Amino acid sequence: MKYVRNYRCTLCGETFDREEKSLTCPVCGDKGILDVEYDYEALKGVLTRDFFEANDNYTMWRYQDVMSVDDRFIKGTLRVGWTPLYEANRLGDVVGVKSLMIKDEGLNPTASLKDRASAVAVVKAMEEGYDTVACSSTGNAASSLAGNAARVGLSTVIFVPERAPQGKLAQLLIYGAKVISVQGDYRDTFELSKAAIDHWGWYNRNAAINPHLVEGKKTVALEIAEQMNWQVSDWVVVSVGDGCTIGGVYKGFYDCYMLGLINRIPKILGVQAEGCCPFYTAYLSDEPLKPTEENTLADSISVGIPRNPVKGLNAVKASGGTWITVTDEAILEAMKTLGSSEGIFGEPAGVTGLAGLIKAVQEGIVTPDESVAMIVTGNGLKDVKNALQAAGEPIKCEPDIEALKPYMV
Amino acid sequence: MKYVRNYRCTLCGETFDREEKSLTCPVCGDKGILDVEYDYEALKGVLTRDFFEANDNYTMWRYQDVMSVDDRFIKGTLRVGWTPLYEANRLGDVVGVKSLMIKDEGLNPTASLKDRASAVAVVKAMEEGYDTVACSSTGNAASSLAGNAARVGLSTVIFVPERAPQGKLAQLLIYGAKVISVQGDYRDTFELSKAAIDHWGWYNRNAAINPHLVEGKKTVALEIAEQMNWQVSDWVVVSVGDGCTIGGVYKGFYDCYMLGLINRIPKILGVQAEGCCPFYTAYLSDEPLKPTEENTLADSISVGIPRNPVKGLNAVKASGGTWITVTDEAILEAMKTLGSSEGIFGEPAGVTGLAGLIKAVQEGIVTPDESVAMIVTGNGLKDVKNALQAAGEPIKCEPDIEALKPYMV
Repeated sequence: MKYVRNYRCTLCGETFDREEKSLTCPVCGDKGILDVEYDYEALKGVLTRDFFEANDNYTMWRYQDVMSVDDRFIKGTLRVGWTPLYEANRLGDVVGVKSLMIKDEGLNPTASLKDRASAVAVVKAMEEGYDTVACSSTGNAASSLAGNAARVGLSTVIFVPERAPQGKLAQLLIYGAKVISVQGDYRDTFELSKAAIDHWGWYNRNAAINPHLVEGKKTVALEIAEQMNWQVSDWVVVSVGDGCTIGGVYKGFYDCYMLGLINRIPKILGVQAEGCCPFYTAYLSDEPLKPTEENTLADSISVGIPRNPVKGLNAVKASGGTWITVTDEAILEAMKTLGSSEGIFGEPAGVTGLAGLIKAVQEGIVTPDESVAMIVTGNGLKDVKNALQAAGEPIKCEPDIEALKPYMV
Repeated sequence: MKYVRNYRCTLCGETFDREEKSLTCPVCGDKGILDVEYDYEALKGVLTRDFFEANDNYTMWRYQDVMSVDDRFIKGTLRVGWTPLYEANRLGDVVGVKSLMIKDEGLNPTASLKDRASAVAVVKAMEEGYDTVACSSTGNAASSLAGNAARVGLSTVIFVPERAPQGKLAQLLIYGAKVISVQGDYRDTFELSKAAIDHWGWYNRNAAINPHLVEGKKTVALEIAEQMNWQVSDWVVVSVGDGCTIGGVYKGFYDCYMLGLINRIPKILGVQAEGCCPFYTAYLSDEPLKPTEENTLADSISVGIPRNPVKGLNAVKASGGTWITVTDEAILEAMKTLGSSEGIFGEPAGVTGLAGLIKAVQEGIVTPDESVAMIVTGNGLKDVKNALQAAGEPIKCEPDIEALKPYMV
């Protein structure tokens, strides 16, 4: 916390004191999403490569000096972060790139990257003396909030759209959250959560609104950079829904760059589902984001009205990357490809990045001499129905070896 | 591997050279399960507390010197082990013990403790030049084998009983395994796998038969001891199906004790479901294990004919521990208790230990002045159906704050 310089509104550019409690710009209101700015000059002397070499805190909190939390409430949280970054050159050969690394975010405590944001949310809520945290979510943000909050003894109220997969619902309920299944789409869900948070005065974990959460999510990029020994790949690939995760990915690499830990920021490939691609459309038309339908089985990125358009669009633009879309069929295919070639089981949104990478190589956007790091954002166990659709059926066999033989030829 | 002294048959006590390729006792046959013995005197100078202090390999392979693998094939495997051990004193207070630690094995790559055995299986298969690995399993052993094998490019053939939960099936299929759903119970499944393995000459990952797998599983105990800074708790609690995991837990602590890393072995509390408790019954009657019905929703420990009776019974006896059984209702209740108090979502067999601990405290077996470490063996996302049964339903609400208010009083 002590290296936070100020907050800056991503809309009007105004800066605000770091003691500012409002989560959004006091001038622009709810659309004025804030960005946390750091005193990089002071941090340069602290967050050196040697510092990390000697740091034995193998969680996301190893980066706490470049985060907007203080350290009083970190102890006792779930173990979030320091997920594995695997060399995946067998899959890389299939895809057609020089080298491929995979960051498996499904190994976070509630099985998605969202734990990084939720861990920050519960720490901030405790800092500010709240006893209840609330959010609306297509699933992972909610289940991660419920789990991280339960671990530290906070209550949670969660608003989910009625189409949330069973695995994610089960998590919420087991973690003891009060779960409101909103009979409507993600937009209805978000608006009801906002009204309720205003009314009851809970801590707001809606990622787009709350600038601290992107600061949690960015740790995935800090880890990728460090796990690559600060020699980052040419590309980083990530699926996009609300725009917060990709915003965090950019911010993490930006931090590394400003601290002199890396000498360039990787190009970011933002991947959306064809059935719900407001970022892609805005990028193509060079116009502001427009609401779109939510028509993809990748529920975690099925967001028709992204709440963080500025950070999302900027991430790709500032990194020199681009946007791409993929079909639901390609997503299901990628699920099987990733699982069978690397032993990593991603949920649909979790493997959308791979589907996008495959298409980007085919289209010459990513070239065979380039290196790639890909983020698998969540575990496939969260959405077994779609996994079974992707995977097919087992062989049903009587307990008799003669019955088995025909299947083994 | 170089510190392996010999193998010893758990039935006849005969020792065999460490180059012996047969997985079971050449004299006793299939029931003669082998135990791996080490040269602890030589190891004492190697595996010191200082060695571990300086060891920055945060996976199960940090213990490879006291395992029966060589190190050629370890690189490139999934990141198994070094799961978190959480202080859980809030839950400890509820349960009524002095201190409670929880080892969350659901954070392994395929979301269960079985990854520790499967990682060893794929390494041994590669050492011995196999290209296909097979096993029968109620689920976790299978899905972990499929995932770990896919990661290193081995093929898998998996035999599952028809009652395997969907989450586990989905994992298998996504990992690209050839899955045989055997129309029968676990016994039929095991026997068909055995016949097929003999017939086609695949590498055998059935945990009871293969002595190396217990050597993988034991790393959970080595980690618990190390994460407690070698000051182990009075009790360690674990659920029991086949007997291999509890056998591994004992072996890990035994290793630590023989190496002088800890000064006593914790008492082990073996917990079974009432509907399938052959170990408990054998313990009470002081007679050999008898086949029992398989009548519990905790599928991972629903094993009517445990394949590792000797190691399982010995673990509890040699540690001075005891056995206990719990109802399915208590298991579902424990799932909710663990999730809502600590933010850890365990599958039914994963939380059976907690249900057993609660009962053991009520019965005075574990006393309030004792410390406890409890192993959550697998992630609840593997079995969403039972989780939803345990957790109840969300509140269904129209997107209107007035409709919400009645639920918030």
